[in-house]
Amino acid sequence: MIPFMPTLTPFRVRYSETDAQKRAHHSHYPVWFEMGRAEYCRAKGFDYRAMEEGGVFLVVAKLECRYTGSLRYDDLAVIETRLVRVGRRILEFSYRVTESSSGAVAALGSTILVPVDEAGRVVSLPDDVFSLLTPCTEEEPAPVPSLSDISLPSGG
Amino acid sequence: MIPFMPTLTPFRVRYSETDAQKRAHHSHYPVWFEMGRAEYCRAKGFDYRAMEEGGVFLVVAKLECRYTGSLRYDDLAVIETRLVRVGRRILEFSYRVTESSSGAVAALGSTILVPVDEAGRVVSLPDDVFSLLTPCTEEEPAPVPSLSDISLPSGG
Amino acid sequence: MIPFMPTLTPFRVRYSETDAQKRAHHSHYPVWFEMGRAEYCRAKGFDYRAMEEGGVFLVVAKLECRYTGSLRYDDLAVIETRLVRVGRRILEFSYRVTESSSGAVAALGSTILVPVDEAGRVVSLPDDVFSLLTPCTEEEPAPVPSLSDISLPSGG
Amino acid sequence: MIPFMPTLTPFRVRYSETDAQKRAHHSHYPVWFEMGRAEYCRAKGFDYRAMEEGGVFLVVAKLECRYTGSLRYDDLAVIETRLVRVGRRILEFSYRVTESSSGAVAALGSTILVPVDEAGRVVSLPDDVFSLLTPCTEEEPAPVPSLSDISLPSGG
Repeated sequence: MIPFMPTLTPFRVRYSETDAQKRAHHSHYPVWFEMGRAEYCRAKGFDYRAMEEGGVFLVVAKLECRYTGSLRYDDLAVIETRLVRVGRRILEFSYRVTESSSGAVAALGSTILVPVDEAGRVVSLPDDVFSLLTPCTEEEPAPVPSLSDISLPSGG
Repeated sequence: MIPFMPTLTPFRVRYSETDAQKRAHHSHYPVWFEMGRAEYCRAKGFDYRAMEEGGVFLVVAKLECRYTGSLRYDDLAVIETRLVRVGRRILEFSYRVTESSSGAVAALGSTILVPVDEAGRVVSLPDDVFSLLTPCTEEEPAPVPSLSDISLPSGG
Repeated sequence: MIPFMPTLTPFRVRYSETDAQKRAHHSHYPVWFEMGRAEYCRAKGFDYRAMEEGGVFLVVAKLECRYTGSLRYDDLAVIETRLVRVGRRILEFSYRVTESSSGAVAALGSTILVPVDEAGRVVSLPDDVFSLLTPCTEEEPAPVPSLSDISLPSGG
Repeated sequence: MIPFMPTLTPFRVRYSETDAQKRAHHSHYPVWFEMGRAEYCRAKGFDYRAMEEGGVFLVVAKLECRYTGSLRYDDLAVIETRLVRVGRRILEFSYRVTESSSGAVAALGSTILVPVDEAGRVVSLPDDVFSLLTPCTEEEPAPVPSLSDISLPSGG
């Protein structure tokens, strides 16, 4: 396993995730990002549930998402997840959601997570988790899309 | 009605919105922002549903959220919604979610929305909507929180 | 306060609750039932959150829902909640969801709930809760809709 | 392919699907049932999305669910889906959700669905769909759990 490789997590858009515009509602992308993150951690040997059982939780401190396309019911899509920053008290992941058959990118996103204890106080990542994840970002596998400004969809 | 005034939308955290950390899951904040936006539009006399029935839809092109606190089941909270930018092809709203009894800010966010037609092509806002919303941003009622960098919760 | 009176909880259908059929997705009705139940308990002086903090939780053991109409985005609706059975180890609520402007019934439902401890073992309701809720069902205010057989929507 | 065989659809419990009791919230089971139904239809050669594009929609007319266990975050579970009744204007499915590693049944459910047109009027199933699904129920592969009365979880 090459540590810094992104993971690819496939999923199908559920009917309950669509909205009256017949597209997936924008609030489900953070849920998909979280699925991608879970599979990323599993692939790197990091058992998130075990860490929680040990009293350390990751909370999302910041979320960004740029919607560059859309997904319909039953579309097969893929979440590409990268770990772009690791610190004792911070993890940053980036995500790309792509519709499988067309290759069209539906969304780009990122989340910053912070380890906390049961009372919600910021703590340090357990050493084993820190050691496991640190090599995952030592080389940048691809330019991470900048989210700092918005390029609107072209059209009409 | 003073056009540029923010709207305040109260809501209670539903049990279904909590997660295993006994706090509201971060993916519900975009849903609450949308509720705040709906009430904002209603308060300004803009009937969003009627616009959709006329064939113009608003899609979220960008979402940002900084989580600065948390909410528990049954907490009464308020969404403070502001319109911070209006163009023919862009609307930007900002949001502040506050727990009512303590006044603690749980999250700050913003969304950029773009008007599209049924086929998803960007179109111009209908004239009446544009005219109605433009005065709402003519004066800035309060500094809008910058989301460009993250200040982590203090602690540990 | 008349103990056995149903409670009426108003809510608006959120955009995120619609689906590609431009109606509220059927999975949100259980969430609305839960909202109705929360407000019912609050109205009767039963603080559900406090009971949970004391280590007793209510879990849903059975859910039934008959969909007799539909709701659209931004519809104002009302949940009418009744407590139809109280035992030491069982509570049964019934619900009616009505679209406000037309009075059309969108759904009828019921849930059976069981008190459990943190480990998920069935326990008895705390005495104060049992005493508080028992009078709420002593008279039947209206025929509770039978859910035992399905009458299909008429049409075509 | 043996027509009347149930389908087995695996899924993992998402963090966003948990609630403050650290178990999956009961409102997600109808969503999982729908996933099971979608995969059932796909396995039998019935393209639901194509039927919708042709103007026929299935709406849920009745839902029942008995919760006999629970699921935690990241549990791997399986939805076993059966078609138990087919008529020109009615379809009934039953579901069993099982936690994979223990084999414990988390829930049993059923849904009755009715074909409608875009205006919501009941219509007949298209002939090809009716012909495709009818053989799927000609033999009953296993006793379908009765949902007519509730057996409470034992305990305390």
